[in-house]
Amino acid sequence: MTNNTITAPRGFLAAGVSGTIKRSGKKDVGLLVCPSGARAAAMFTTNRIVASPVIISREHVKSQTVYGVVMNSGNANACTGTQGIRNAMTMCKLLAREVDAKPQQILVASTGIIGHQLPMKKVTAGILDAAEKLSGSAEAGFDFANAIMTTDTRPKQAFRQIKIDTRTITIAGTVKGAGMIAPNMATTLCFITTDIAIKKTLLAHALTDAIGNSLNRFTVDGHQSTNDTAILLASGLAGNKEIAAAGKAYKMFATALRDLCEDLMKQMALDAEGATRMFKVEIEGAASKQDAAKAARAVADYALFKCAVHGSDPNWGRIICAIGSSQVKLKREKLSCKIGNVTVFKNGAPAAFDAKKVSKLMSQKEHTITIDLGSGKHTDFCYGCDLGREYVTINADYHT
Amino acid sequence: MTNNTITAPRGFLAAGVSGTIKRSGKKDVGLLVCPSGARAAAMFTTNRIVASPVIISREHVKSQTVYGVVMNSGNANACTGTQGIRNAMTMCKLLAREVDAKPQQILVASTGIIGHQLPMKKVTAGILDAAEKLSGSAEAGFDFANAIMTTDTRPKQAFRQIKIDTRTITIAGTVKGAGMIAPNMATTLCFITTDIAIKKTLLAHALTDAIGNSLNRFTVDGHQSTNDTAILLASGLAGNKEIAAAGKAYKMFATALRDLCEDLMKQMALDAEGATRMFKVEIEGAASKQDAAKAARAVADYALFKCAVHGSDPNWGRIICAIGSSQVKLKREKLSCKIGNVTVFKNGAPAAFDAKKVSKLMSQKEHTITIDLGSGKHTDFCYGCDLGREYVTINADYHT
Repeated sequence: MTNNTITAPRGFLAAGVSGTIKRSGKKDVGLLVCPSGARAAAMFTTNRIVASPVIISREHVKSQTVYGVVMNSGNANACTGTQGIRNAMTMCKLLAREVDAKPQQILVASTGIIGHQLPMKKVTAGILDAAEKLSGSAEAGFDFANAIMTTDTRPKQAFRQIKIDTRTITIAGTVKGAGMIAPNMATTLCFITTDIAIKKTLLAHALTDAIGNSLNRFTVDGHQSTNDTAILLASGLAGNKEIAAAGKAYKMFATALRDLCEDLMKQMALDAEGATRMFKVEIEGAASKQDAAKAARAVADYALFKCAVHGSDPNWGRIICAIGSSQVKLKREKLSCKIGNVTVFKNGAPAAFDAKKVSKLMSQKEHTITIDLGSGKHTDFCYGCDLGREYVTINADYHT
Repeated sequence: MTNNTITAPRGFLAAGVSGTIKRSGKKDVGLLVCPSGARAAAMFTTNRIVASPVIISREHVKSQTVYGVVMNSGNANACTGTQGIRNAMTMCKLLAREVDAKPQQILVASTGIIGHQLPMKKVTAGILDAAEKLSGSAEAGFDFANAIMTTDTRPKQAFRQIKIDTRTITIAGTVKGAGMIAPNMATTLCFITTDIAIKKTLLAHALTDAIGNSLNRFTVDGHQSTNDTAILLASGLAGNKEIAAAGKAYKMFATALRDLCEDLMKQMALDAEGATRMFKVEIEGAASKQDAAKAARAVADYALFKCAVHGSDPNWGRIICAIGSSQVKLKREKLSCKIGNVTVFKNGAPAAFDAKKVSKLMSQKEHTITIDLGSGKHTDFCYGCDLGREYVTINADYHT
């Protein structure tokens, strides 16, 4: 079995076990360790209410060297007051002791139900159990990818390799999925490992760029969960000359990382609660970059259109309605829309089209909607997925 | 049969017929006429893409005297270019000819599918048929209330009477419903009649106030449909001294109108697509009125919480998550939340509560969520309804 998990890059160990935090008995405690020490970068939710692990990790990621990440699913440790902060810190201390690091050199993440204190006996036992099982094997990486899941139906992993200085650089990542309507309402946790040698500031820059063009294109800033976290660890063991400037080598790495994150985002979109397919919204002719982004997200978030996608229904009126609602600048007499390569609305008026053909196109796993606002030269894009009945079933019954 | 329809106030005739615009053969053309001439006020969608009838009615409502309203369901006449404008104007001309008025003295409204030209032969035949059936009877008012429906399962009507100058003033209204997630995404059409004698400016003021505190509390400004319209006609035949200032009589009228609109809003909320219950979100302790409104709407619009309401699930974590997402000012250590009269979150930490009791409370037809942001003295509110599987079923298959 080729290792294409987060333990594939040189220098990483992982584990995933059941600490019985989840009633189902599925895996719910994960450890990711870099014994030689890693450069770390992270991005967090912009929600004004952030979970305890986010508060802790935002501080700990400032450490020059990070030795590991401890995570649990089944409980978000959010809205849990000072006790929640202490519990998140305890998780860091437990792993720190196991890997001979300072607690400040450990990151922590949680996902699951909001507002319940962590069952610390179970969490502690789970961490100690996982620490004994730490391994660089593909199985261990796969166990970690399983431990981060909540309503996901399958683990999501991606793997890329590039050559820098004749050295093979490996990047691997795993992500846990999100809800659907404003897809970012459920927690997104993303863990990426790489063995590249790179300066901490550049690592952070590459992560911001990659997430900004992938996972954050599937989310709206204003609607993130309390726990959203993306962590990137670089062991530096690939043997390349440390990347210290934004030159060619940096660009190769940044491009591969972005590609990997887009891969993870698409896997996440297609495994969104009740989703059966995804779509890309491309905005052209916007008066500003902000307008383009706003319009793209307005369409991707529009529940009525997401329902239409679920029904393979070329109801472009809902697209135009979403665009109008977004309050962006537009020229009514130039406004145009394509579904796939088929023009359905042209210069402010309906265009004749083969509804059956477009319906078939929309029933594919992925299709693209293009809207020209006729107001300028700016473009942007966003991904969305369809809204199915299962979404309601899952979310009406999740808690009780 | 007591008349509690829009023909109840003195001076109004109505009709509702099938023009076979809807494939179902249900009523789809409605006329509302005030032969003696009425003062008119209207409010329209803030969507940047507005339907042809909105463009026309925005102009025509400026007329000092309005003689009637012509409407159709089954086709929104939106995104239909200049042909759409001509068709909306033709509808006005047809009714104008019947009631001996100028086209500029007729208002027009449409609802239904976006992006298809109106079938003008059918619309014309329907208007002429309805004109022959114009009547001041309760049956005629009820027919009109039926003709405005799209996915509504029942007509919605409200009726109020007050005494001014020993005269009985009657107000009656009907509304057609909306979709659900951001509930305003489907078209809201609201028609209100009254026989009060009142200055045009005050009539408009009363309508803005009433809609602003009812229908617009169930909608988010940024997400209105292309066709949303509320029209208020005052015949002036009640015999009261014309209200010319915002004194006691005006306040009595404005209060009754607001009450009537709240009644219509609640009927609409409970008949939203797939909805089984509604909830009121009350925000306290906000740093500004704007923050209070924004936070209230964020919770009422939050699909994950709407699903929880559908499942009678006291998942208050989703409420707190929505509040945090809304980016309003809040003091984490003072943030508190009640469901009904039960405190579920207090001063930034979970509160112990009887989940069964709260679940039962949430299964009622209406309940209230109260959130204290702990940041100031401002308050506001918003209404929402639950999100059921039926919403998806209806909206995945509406078009094709």
